[in-house]
Amino acid sequence: MQHSGLVQTVQVPQPCVMVIFGASGDLTKRMLIPSLYELYSAGLLPENFSVIGFARKEIPTAEFRDSMRLAIGQHCQEDFLKSGKVNNFLDNIEYFTGKYDDQESFHALGKRLMEIDAEKDTGGNRLFYMSVPYEAVAGIADNLGKCRLNKPVSDDSWTRVIFEKPFGNDLESAVSLNRQITRYFREEQVFRIDHYLGKETVQNILVTRFANGIFEPLWNRNYIDHVEITSSESIGIENRAGYYDHTGALRDMVQNHLLQLLSYIAMEPPAVFDAKALRDESLKVIQSLRPYEPSEVRSMVIRGQYTSSVIKGEVLPGYRQEEGVPPDSRTETFVALKTYIDNWRWGGVPFYIRTGKRMPTRVTEIVIHFKSTPYRLFTDVDDIAQSYNQLVIRIQPDEGILIKFAMKVPGTELKVKNVDMDFHYSDLGDVDLPSAYEKLLLDCMLGNSTLFIRNDQVVASWEFIQPVLDAWKNDSSIPLQGYPAGTWGPECADDLIAGKDFKWRYPCRNLEGEGEYCEL
Amino acid sequence: MQHSGLVQTVQVPQPCVMVIFGASGDLTKRMLIPSLYELYSAGLLPENFSVIGFARKEIPTAEFRDSMRLAIGQHCQEDFLKSGKVNNFLDNIEYFTGKYDDQESFHALGKRLMEIDAEKDTGGNRLFYMSVPYEAVAGIADNLGKCRLNKPVSDDSWTRVIFEKPFGNDLESAVSLNRQITRYFREEQVFRIDHYLGKETVQNILVTRFANGIFEPLWNRNYIDHVEITSSESIGIENRAGYYDHTGALRDMVQNHLLQLLSYIAMEPPAVFDAKALRDESLKVIQSLRPYEPSEVRSMVIRGQYTSSVIKGEVLPGYRQEEGVPPDSRTETFVALKTYIDNWRWGGVPFYIRTGKRMPTRVTEIVIHFKSTPYRLFTDVDDIAQSYNQLVIRIQPDEGILIKFAMKVPGTELKVKNVDMDFHYSDLGDVDLPSAYEKLLLDCMLGNSTLFIRNDQVVASWEFIQPVLDAWKNDSSIPLQGYPAGTWGPECADDLIAGKDFKWRYPCRNLEGEGEYCEL
Repeated sequence: MQHSGLVQTVQVPQPCVMVIFGASGDLTKRMLIPSLYELYSAGLLPENFSVIGFARKEIPTAEFRDSMRLAIGQHCQEDFLKSGKVNNFLDNIEYFTGKYDDQESFHALGKRLMEIDAEKDTGGNRLFYMSVPYEAVAGIADNLGKCRLNKPVSDDSWTRVIFEKPFGNDLESAVSLNRQITRYFREEQVFRIDHYLGKETVQNILVTRFANGIFEPLWNRNYIDHVEITSSESIGIENRAGYYDHTGALRDMVQNHLLQLLSYIAMEPPAVFDAKALRDESLKVIQSLRPYEPSEVRSMVIRGQYTSSVIKGEVLPGYRQEEGVPPDSRTETFVALKTYIDNWRWGGVPFYIRTGKRMPTRVTEIVIHFKSTPYRLFTDVDDIAQSYNQLVIRIQPDEGILIKFAMKVPGTELKVKNVDMDFHYSDLGDVDLPSAYEKLLLDCMLGNSTLFIRNDQVVASWEFIQPVLDAWKNDSSIPLQGYPAGTWGPECADDLIAGKDFKWRYPCRNLEGEGEYCEL
Repeated sequence: MQHSGLVQTVQVPQPCVMVIFGASGDLTKRMLIPSLYELYSAGLLPENFSVIGFARKEIPTAEFRDSMRLAIGQHCQEDFLKSGKVNNFLDNIEYFTGKYDDQESFHALGKRLMEIDAEKDTGGNRLFYMSVPYEAVAGIADNLGKCRLNKPVSDDSWTRVIFEKPFGNDLESAVSLNRQITRYFREEQVFRIDHYLGKETVQNILVTRFANGIFEPLWNRNYIDHVEITSSESIGIENRAGYYDHTGALRDMVQNHLLQLLSYIAMEPPAVFDAKALRDESLKVIQSLRPYEPSEVRSMVIRGQYTSSVIKGEVLPGYRQEEGVPPDSRTETFVALKTYIDNWRWGGVPFYIRTGKRMPTRVTEIVIHFKSTPYRLFTDVDDIAQSYNQLVIRIQPDEGILIKFAMKVPGTELKVKNVDMDFHYSDLGDVDLPSAYEKLLLDCMLGNSTLFIRNDQVVASWEFIQPVLDAWKNDSSIPLQGYPAGTWGPECADDLIAGKDFKWRYPCRNLEGEGEYCEL
């Protein structure tokens, strides 16, 4: 790696070797290697850095490098490709054939790691990335432990393990998975990725809240009426029926990403900006979520499943028609829920979460609905216009923030209307937002776990979710609402939020839905 | 006037006759007649409406109409000219030769008004507009009274009088002028124009404050550090030396326009949105301004006068070189002052006002400087960036509002910087902001005095200003600071506002100043 003569203000990690378990999989090609290459290209990787791709398949290193070269070409931004560093980067990658359940493979891996340390002076620092199905994680952790690959090789070196959701499939399995992982790894060594937290705009929630004097005074039950978090996808389940059908929207999106977003919106200011303080505050929010009584689940949590519809002349299949989905599946592809945070800041303020597949557009945003003015001074005008301010934090796409506020309509009369004041990240000009994976891989190498999920957060999230899973399982009379593919979900999700003046914000209505609401 | 079949939601005044004293003057051509025509063209004038232009010069009505036709062509927006209503409009205008100090002229005017009432069914409603030098106002009011033109002709009709600043030249003359006016007119009949209050964006200050839930909680000493009001002009005194040299910036801008702006920013929410409530609140602010002790004037009020300079190769004359200005004039063309509003909302919050001629650009804006966050969580960043939010209310040009707030700099590091979120009136698309005169003329005809200045407001403003005038007169050791034409005023005005992190906001630095600061 070349360092230019310019002052490097950016922190570069120590030398290390990264082992990717599941190197032949999709994530490696689509995300991990392209992200590593972009970091490398930007001078953010250590000079002595090596990647071992570990998987069952027998692949010669040369062939593996070729496929990684292809992946970089497909997934990296053009600017990075121009730098001509691809060959140098690929020289640091090798492939290693091994079995996840075979201790011998791990002994051999350990030997190879020692060699690389000697060859490349990587200082014994190791990062194990588990890009494998959930069921394989515990076994790999076990074998790493049994071959003593869990412990740092010296007092000066580090060994870390990264894995991704699902962190279990329910409360019990999450606790059990954690027990297996922590048998050999201490919690500080474990980096649980929620890639939402790597997104620029998610981190910006904290900056918006805590680096501005004007938001925090308003950020409580006195001034906020309710909070709305929407994360919609326009795609269906693609070819992931096997995974999705025994997961569903609640586990796939709410238990992790959306509860994390909620905790960032709702948390108290941390005492300092570090991993412990921040995750302590996030945890407190999730622990303060009001637990659902079994009898409340029916009215507080709406589940839906998309049905076939015709959008602009194109027939969209229903969920049950998707390849690999059982024709009587009762897996939810949509969830809308109402919850409360029982603490002093938020007492009585409803938080609404909504997520689904096959909705009109892909968008993730948070809407802070402020309370009305205490008195409506301008009476001869539309009441709504002057009453409710909104702050919209757009996570994706078109990242930015927007304030809806009332203003005088130009003219000789005194009329009031709502207008928008906004800031788009794209206003900053030619800015490439770093991908969430780049940010998180770098943070992990730097040992900064701020944006990773701690085990107690995982458990607290499952504790909140479990009563819903139980109610759905135990009470088949709780309806699964159908909603036509390409719409904003079942009608009764609208009733959930409906108040005197309120409804969900629909970020985009361009895609028109056809078809009827129905119950499945 | 044609009414279309469309529903008219806009209030149209009752039939009336408007008499313009000083009809041969500049304001009539430049503002009054063009504004009336635009109102007429927009269907906002009553169907039975007539204008009498009153002045000393002998001018045939036909000739007067021709010059008004020319004025409309020069000063009205093209859209209005296209409507082809100019001839109809001019048919309702006539010229009347008379002397302001000659009672006979007023008797004749009275007779003519009766005739018009009969001819045009204008219902006896009369609006007397005094577009005459300050010294002539009292005499006209007197003659109107002596000829019984001050009283409504019936119980159903109204008689109103409009005049403009200066409302006196100091406290004593203001009180005296008012005594003369109210000898024949009741306060409800008197409409004192401060054309700043007719500006869209000034009225929008009140909507911004009182139709939004998010601003009012922040709008006090707990969250606001200081407030800055700047009104700069790039032009010099043009050909108004006669008026300006015995007026100066303090009387010309601060006593009226800028104290009114300040009162809109600082007032308590009025109980209802009507003339009495709003003007009561405005008055309370001005009455709460902390009076200057004679010894404070030197440090709290900076006066300046522009000196000759060279801007981009062009020589700009100093004030004393302007035609008609005495070469030893000590009239101020610049004022910057610091003041406090001694009440519960604003205790301890400094308000800064700055105005001047021959500054780098023409701009009027209010900047609310919010306090820093109570604790700076993001420490490895520029302190300023994350600390101070600003709300800028731009009165002119480029009308709109802007919030300066801190945001994460895109990238893998956690850096914070200030960005802007803004709303421009021009974002509303093809909006013609009605001129201040249109708004105010219409309001006066409708009997809505909300945006006009009440006598007690005038007196309170002078009470605040008088100690400064006295100190400047009595203590010649208080410096008059020179500032090069085309700069932001004397250096010591910067010291007035300078705090740990603060300085004046410079809305535009494009015009570069050359030359030295000096004392005159």
